[in-house]
Amino acid sequence: MKPAMPALFALVLAVPAVATPPVPMTPTLEGVADSALRNDTYAWDFVEGITTEVGPRQAGTEAEARGRAWAMRWLKANGFANVADEPFQMETWVPGEARAEIVSPFPQPLAVLALGDTASTGPDGLTAEVVLFRTVDDLRAAPEGSLKGKIAYISHSMTRTQDGSQYGFAGPARWVGAGIAASKGAVATVIKSVGTDSERTPHTGGTDFPQGVAPTPAGALAIPDANNLERMFARAGGKPIMMKLTLTPRSLGMTTSGNVVGEIVGRDPSLPPVLVACHIDSWWNGTGAIDDGAGCGIVAAAAKNVAASGRPLRTIRVLMAGAEETGLWGSKAYSAAHINEPIAVGLESDFGADRIWQFQSNFRDRNPGLHNRIVKAVARFGVSGGTGVASGGADINIVRDQKSAIIDLRQDGTRYFDLHHTANDTLDKIDPVQLRQNVAVWTQVVGILANEPGEILPRQ
Amino acid sequence: MKPAMPALFALVLAVPAVATPPVPMTPTLEGVADSALRNDTYAWDFVEGITTEVGPRQAGTEAEARGRAWAMRWLKANGFANVADEPFQMETWVPGEARAEIVSPFPQPLAVLALGDTASTGPDGLTAEVVLFRTVDDLRAAPEGSLKGKIAYISHSMTRTQDGSQYGFAGPARWVGAGIAASKGAVATVIKSVGTDSERTPHTGGTDFPQGVAPTPAGALAIPDANNLERMFARAGGKPIMMKLTLTPRSLGMTTSGNVVGEIVGRDPSLPPVLVACHIDSWWNGTGAIDDGAGCGIVAAAAKNVAASGRPLRTIRVLMAGAEETGLWGSKAYSAAHINEPIAVGLESDFGADRIWQFQSNFRDRNPGLHNRIVKAVARFGVSGGTGVASGGADINIVRDQKSAIIDLRQDGTRYFDLHHTANDTLDKIDPVQLRQNVAVWTQVVGILANEPGEILPRQ
Repeated sequence: MKPAMPALFALVLAVPAVATPPVPMTPTLEGVADSALRNDTYAWDFVEGITTEVGPRQAGTEAEARGRAWAMRWLKANGFANVADEPFQMETWVPGEARAEIVSPFPQPLAVLALGDTASTGPDGLTAEVVLFRTVDDLRAAPEGSLKGKIAYISHSMTRTQDGSQYGFAGPARWVGAGIAASKGAVATVIKSVGTDSERTPHTGGTDFPQGVAPTPAGALAIPDANNLERMFARAGGKPIMMKLTLTPRSLGMTTSGNVVGEIVGRDPSLPPVLVACHIDSWWNGTGAIDDGAGCGIVAAAAKNVAASGRPLRTIRVLMAGAEETGLWGSKAYSAAHINEPIAVGLESDFGADRIWQFQSNFRDRNPGLHNRIVKAVARFGVSGGTGVASGGADINIVRDQKSAIIDLRQDGTRYFDLHHTANDTLDKIDPVQLRQNVAVWTQVVGILANEPGEILPRQ
Repeated sequence: MKPAMPALFALVLAVPAVATPPVPMTPTLEGVADSALRNDTYAWDFVEGITTEVGPRQAGTEAEARGRAWAMRWLKANGFANVADEPFQMETWVPGEARAEIVSPFPQPLAVLALGDTASTGPDGLTAEVVLFRTVDDLRAAPEGSLKGKIAYISHSMTRTQDGSQYGFAGPARWVGAGIAASKGAVATVIKSVGTDSERTPHTGGTDFPQGVAPTPAGALAIPDANNLERMFARAGGKPIMMKLTLTPRSLGMTTSGNVVGEIVGRDPSLPPVLVACHIDSWWNGTGAIDDGAGCGIVAAAAKNVAASGRPLRTIRVLMAGAEETGLWGSKAYSAAHINEPIAVGLESDFGADRIWQFQSNFRDRNPGLHNRIVKAVARFGVSGGTGVASGGADINIVRDQKSAIIDLRQDGTRYFDLHHTANDTLDKIDPVQLRQNVAVWTQVVGILANEPGEILPRQ
């Protein structure tokens, strides 16, 4: 049955066709953000491209240089202006081989990776008794000299948290454990990986030795292997657990790295820009998808989306920092080089590719109007306004150094420490649906900031 | 406030205490099965012990020998009789080093492992163009000689299935892919791992070369790496993808392996025994927890639990076969040695440690009474009766060779091919709650079989 045509519809059809083509409408900021939620392609294209065409990008190496060149090509091809690679010098460390095996009483190999900036055992490795410490505090309590000739093993537990706060809780095992053990005479340190997964892929990462303490070899066991080692202690009946550890990292001395920058130039380039940051390097073992290819894809996509809604008032500057993982070399170099060029507000994406759940700023009390406008604008994406004070992250030292305005777009980190600094940091771990929400929120927020005429005053 | 004592309770208290201790009651079969469901310790103890104290147990090696010795000690300590290691000779292959890297156009390493019984590239590796085949059928259709000097890459897809049926669908890429490619001139083959996970841990496994085709090097890429390679094909714009492959497996020639056996001796040892089987070896990369430490733990726990409900009528023989992974050497040797000693019924556990969801036999039509008794007895554990015909698995060749009765206790294989033949086959992957259900069902079924007086007649 054919329904009768409603009267109104008939009326519309009766309007004569306009002969001239319609003037293309510039989409609104809300429109481009909503569009990103449905169909982001830029962030995905960036992270797929750099993980596929470059892969691992260890700081200071030729692979990172290829990563920077790739990112510059991508930025230029996507309409960014003033694209550059700003070089800096850095101390470069490369991982070499990594093997651990229990020699007795229960011989078997354990999956291990070297920690950043640690020393080599030499190619023949070293064999020593393992001493178990359940916490860093237990290790701190060990008498001076008591670890002479021993391998310290630090176990600890880390629980998945949405806000990633357990990194601060469990991280010290890696950050300072080897240094403390070395100061008490240990010949090497192994830790349970700082992570929340149960895969045979150890989590590497940086470690620091105190002034005056010579670096020792140090590695992270995969979590199943660490748990196996703890079961060995329980089953050995007091027999010593002997481990052979072969880690052959080395220093390449000073090499050149660089910060990749690019801009969407604003209508008033005299106004301080909005800085959106990420880092281009990764550890050697994964392909740097969630850490931090996705972050670079997100900030670049947001800037490009904002431009699609009309040229913004302020310039949006993208900073893809080099050599973050091995000591924030790029972030520090960028701050040193540009400290006298004020940034209006800075924000970074360096915590994976899952959903944003909270917005917070460091200007809520002095710029409540702007803060609340952002809160309202991102509510439709399921993002709440937080009352904490944003502090930014590793890639925006300059903004902290300038005491400028900062925004944190807090991502869901529940899965992040399953993958962080592991071989499993690969493209397949990115959920495209969550990534699109992330890009949409970033687009909305960066668009508001880049069109804000007034000064943004951070908390004093 | 103190409540008044109820009258009944007061009456109970008034009964005088019995001076003689109660005679210990032998628990029923149902009781020991129910108890295993609540609190199995034997299966867990076995699999925890062998994965912790021995670890990987590559067939034919010293590590497998340590595994057999460990299993014998466990069986003796747990009251099994006639514990023995029945030796056989086998061709032993060991994996060596494995590295793959894309040389151009997108240089980066890919995670790879050698496949069993494949050849070495030599320590310097080989570099060749990669040719992509989406299916084994596509590879079969390639013209003769068309792969001369090339590396064949077989992609394929595998979906998680509860019954594991996609192993038959996707497995040929590994089982025959390298042989087909070699017969067409390929210098090497790499496949996407036959698995359902997304981890950087490749799945190894056996491969066969046809009569008259010399083995080539062949390896499996981890699934994220295989997907990355496929993206490279999509992004290379027709440029050749060049891979450097270094695989250095070697043959150790003939070495000694063995089958570990042990018995719960029945009241009438003249009756054919119930054979419960698993395999003691594992690939070198994991610790053989789900494949097949758990299976050995399950069958041994079931036999021990049955004994706790009273000495069974028939002997229960445990067979922990050696060298299953590299060609069912142990299962074949056991059959050859014992072919003239009839088995009443055989069943094996070699599909992980998750829940049993179906019971099926090959005697439903000829022994419906026994079949249906088992169906009823396992229903309380959530196990249904299947109408298919049980065919057993790799470890019970003898039962098929004798055309004896077979039972399949079908386990949930949804997660199995995430872990199968990977480094991730470790203890932490075993869910103790599911394992306990598995042991309870096995206890119930083995108990019924071991107390069955009549002949069990398989389908003809």
